[in-house]
Amino acid sequence: MKSVLITILTTFSFFPAQTLDSLINKKADMIIKSALTEQIGYQLLEELTELGGRVSGSASSLSAINWAKLKMEELGLANVYLQEAMVPHWVRNDIESAEIRFKKIRMANRSLNIAALGGSIGTPAEGIVGNVLEVKNFKELETRKAEAKGKIIFYNRAFDNTNVNPFISYGMAVDQRVFGAIEASKYGAKAVIVRSVTSKPDNTPHVGVMRYADSLAKIPACAIGVQDADFLSGMLKTDPDLQISIKLNCENLPEIMSYNVIGEIEGSEYPDEIIVIGGHLDAWDKGSGAHDDGGGCMQSIDALLLLKAVGYTPKRTIRCVLFTNEENGSGGAEAYADSALKSGEKHIAGIESDRGLGTPRGFSVTADSLTLKKMNSWLPLLNKSLIDWIRPGGSGADIGKIKNMQAYIGYVPDSQRYFDYHHSANDTFDVVHPREMQLGSASMAILLMLISEYGI
Amino acid sequence: MKSVLITILTTFSFFPAQTLDSLINKKADMIIKSALTEQIGYQLLEELTELGGRVSGSASSLSAINWAKLKMEELGLANVYLQEAMVPHWVRNDIESAEIRFKKIRMANRSLNIAALGGSIGTPAEGIVGNVLEVKNFKELETRKAEAKGKIIFYNRAFDNTNVNPFISYGMAVDQRVFGAIEASKYGAKAVIVRSVTSKPDNTPHVGVMRYADSLAKIPACAIGVQDADFLSGMLKTDPDLQISIKLNCENLPEIMSYNVIGEIEGSEYPDEIIVIGGHLDAWDKGSGAHDDGGGCMQSIDALLLLKAVGYTPKRTIRCVLFTNEENGSGGAEAYADSALKSGEKHIAGIESDRGLGTPRGFSVTADSLTLKKMNSWLPLLNKSLIDWIRPGGSGADIGKIKNMQAYIGYVPDSQRYFDYHHSANDTFDVVHPREMQLGSASMAILLMLISEYGI
Repeated sequence: MKSVLITILTTFSFFPAQTLDSLINKKADMIIKSALTEQIGYQLLEELTELGGRVSGSASSLSAINWAKLKMEELGLANVYLQEAMVPHWVRNDIESAEIRFKKIRMANRSLNIAALGGSIGTPAEGIVGNVLEVKNFKELETRKAEAKGKIIFYNRAFDNTNVNPFISYGMAVDQRVFGAIEASKYGAKAVIVRSVTSKPDNTPHVGVMRYADSLAKIPACAIGVQDADFLSGMLKTDPDLQISIKLNCENLPEIMSYNVIGEIEGSEYPDEIIVIGGHLDAWDKGSGAHDDGGGCMQSIDALLLLKAVGYTPKRTIRCVLFTNEENGSGGAEAYADSALKSGEKHIAGIESDRGLGTPRGFSVTADSLTLKKMNSWLPLLNKSLIDWIRPGGSGADIGKIKNMQAYIGYVPDSQRYFDYHHSANDTFDVVHPREMQLGSASMAILLMLISEYGI
Repeated sequence: MKSVLITILTTFSFFPAQTLDSLINKKADMIIKSALTEQIGYQLLEELTELGGRVSGSASSLSAINWAKLKMEELGLANVYLQEAMVPHWVRNDIESAEIRFKKIRMANRSLNIAALGGSIGTPAEGIVGNVLEVKNFKELETRKAEAKGKIIFYNRAFDNTNVNPFISYGMAVDQRVFGAIEASKYGAKAVIVRSVTSKPDNTPHVGVMRYADSLAKIPACAIGVQDADFLSGMLKTDPDLQISIKLNCENLPEIMSYNVIGEIEGSEYPDEIIVIGGHLDAWDKGSGAHDDGGGCMQSIDALLLLKAVGYTPKRTIRCVLFTNEENGSGGAEAYADSALKSGEKHIAGIESDRGLGTPRGFSVTADSLTLKKMNSWLPLLNKSLIDWIRPGGSGADIGKIKNMQAYIGYVPDSQRYFDYHHSANDTFDVVHPREMQLGSASMAILLMLISEYGI
C-alpha cells in the first residue's frame, strides 16, 4: 500500500443516519472510541485466561466463576450474583498417551498426539491394545461391521476446507467425535480414535464433547492431531495389522454444583423488560478457552461497561449472563431459562457471542419479519463498528433456551480462523487480536443501546 | 461454540441470484471451491517470499520479476512479457544503528531499534551525534524552530488506534515519515528519527518512503520501534541533554531499469476490451512483503488461473499486471499507463489488490452511478466469497494511473491487522492465512468473470 497517496475508504459515510436520534448516534461513536482505547474486554480476557482451564465442575472453573463475580462487582454492575446449576463433572487427569506398535514395518513404537474427548471413560491402567479399523463415516463402519469387533475404530474423515463458512465444515465432520463411540460400541469395538475436527493442518488434538448410549458398553474415545491421523492412515496401508495402545485415566465423577455469573444495569423506564447478553464461561481445557468462549463472556461484560463509560442510561434492563456448562450439558442455560420462566420476568431479546473473536461481520437473528426489518433500520449505526448485515438465522445455544423472546441474536464475527483454535491448545490469549475483539464489544454495546432505547 | 447443536448461518442464501446467468452462478461456486482447495495464490506467495526483499532496483527484486514471468509462462498465461520502467535505486546496505548517550542519568549507552527510511542518505562513516528535539507534529516543530538547529528531530506522534479504519490512522500519522526530513532541514536539524507508523505496540521499526526537497540540505532519516520511541521520550523528560548517535550507510544510486510483469487471457469476443488486475511486486525489505504486496500480486495471477481452472473463457481480455516501484516512485504504474495511452488499447476496468490479505469485505469503486448500480446487481454472486458491499471510493495507486477506464476498483479485505505488519519485519508469509487470502483470489476472479461476461 502506497505510503503517500492515502485513499480513505468511505466506510463510515455510506449509510445516512438521518432517522436515528443524534444523541444515540453520538453515543455510538463514543462507544467505539472507548472500546478501542480502553480495551477492557481484552484486558479482562488476559486475566481470565491466566486462571487455567474451565471444564464444567473443575476447581479452576470455579475460580473463574468467582473471579468473574468479583470483577462484575468491582466494575459497578448491579444485582451481581451466582445462579446455581448442576453440571457433569468430567476430569481429564494426568495420563493420556497412545502409540503405534508396528507389525510388518521395522520401526520402533511411534507415539501419537492424542487427547481424551470430554466425557470419555479412561482405559484400564495397563491401557488398551488393539488392531485398527479405519473408516470415513458411520455408513462405512456399518458396511464393515464384521471387522469391528475387538478393534480400535479410527474415524478419519477430514474437515472440508472448501466451504466458505467453516461452521458448515465443522457440522459435516463433528458426528465422528460426538457419536463415534456409540456407533463403534454397537459392533463390539474397544476404543475410538477420531481425527481432530479442525481447519488447521497442524498436529494439535482438538477435543470436545462425546456421548455414550446407556444401552451400550462405554468405550474410551480420544482425538488425534491431523498430521498423526494422516501418518497413521498411511502406515495402515502398508502395515494393516499394526496395533495401537492407548492409556487414558480420565473419569466421570458425580454431578457437581456450578454457577452462572449474572450482573446487570437496571432500566430507568422499563426495568421489567430484560435484554440478555452473554457467552459461556466454561471451556475445554487444552488451551485457555480464549476464542471459545472466554472472549465472548468478556465482550459481554465489556458491552455493559461501555454503556456506562459513555454515560448511557438504558431505558430497559440490560443483563449480562456468563453461562456455565455450554460445552457438555447446557446445565447453565437450562438453569437460567427455568428461573426466568418461573419468575415471570419479561425477556425481550438476547444476544450471544460464541463464534470467536474475529472482526465483526453481522448479526444472525431468529425473529419475525417486522423485528428483522426494525433491526435492519439500525444498520447505519451498527455499520460504524463494521456490522455489514442483519440476517435471519440461528442465535446461540445458551440464550436459545430462554422462552418467548422477541429476538434471539447471534453475534457473527469473521470466522476463517476459528476452527484453527477451537477446543485445542491453540485457543490461547495470544491468538486474539485486540482491535478485532474490541470492535465486537462495541457492536454489541451499540445494539444493546438501540434495543434498550427503541424496544424491539 | 457448542459441539453438537450446530446453527448453520444463512450466509449463502440471503441474496437471491435470480437475475444472473445460472452457468455464471455455477462457475462462481467452482471458483470458490478451487481457490480454497488448490490454494495456488498462497503457494505462489510462499515461493515469492523465499526470494528475499524486493526494493525497486535491487538484485532480489529482479529475481522476483524473472521468477514471476517464468511462473506466468509455466502456468499458461498468454502474451507474457516484461515491460521496462526506470526506477529509483536506493540501497539499505549493512550499517544501521543508533544509541542513546546519557548525560544526567548514570546509565551505559543504550541501543535503539531503528531502520533507515527508504530514500534516506547515509550518515558520515563516524556517524552523526546530536541532542534531541522531540515534537509531535510540524506545527510544534515550527513553534520550536529556534531549538532545532544542529539537533536530531524526534517525531513521536502515535498511530491513533481509536479509528475503526486503520488506514485513516495511517493517513493521520504518515506525514512525519514522508515529509519529516524536509521540515527538519528547513530549521537546520542534522537528522530525523520517526516513530514507526503502526498499530502494533512491539519494537519493530516500520519503514517506508521519505522525501527530500531539492532546495534544502538532505539529512538522514530513520524509523524507530514504538517501544523505543516511548523509552526515548521518557528518558528525554529526565535527561533532556542526552545525545543520540546514528550510523547509516544507505545510499541513493542512479536510476536503474526495472520491469512490470504482464500476462493475460485473451478475450474470445471482444479481445480489444481489456480488464486489468494487479498489485505491486516491489516491497520494503525488512520483511518479505507478504501482505504489502506480494500477496496482492499472487492473488492477481491466481484470479486468472482460477478462471482457467473452471473452464471459463472470457469474452474480454483479462490482463494481470505486477507493477514495479509502487513504494517509492510509481515508475511501473506510469510506464504501463503511458504504454496503454500510446497503444490506444481500450481499458474498460481495473482491479487492484493492495490492502493486505484479510478476509474479503467489499470493493471500493471509482465510477459513475450507473456503473456502480450495475456492479451492485452482482452482489448475489460476490457475496458467495464474502463480499458484502460495493461502495464509491478510491481504488489503488497503480491502476489509478491508467486513463479513461469505466471503473477503478480497489479490493477491500479486513484491515484490522494490516498495520501490524506493514513495511516491517513482521510482514512475512507466516502471518498470512490461506483461507483469507484465497477468498480474496476467488472474489476478484468472480468479479473479473462478471465484467468480462457482461461488460461494465
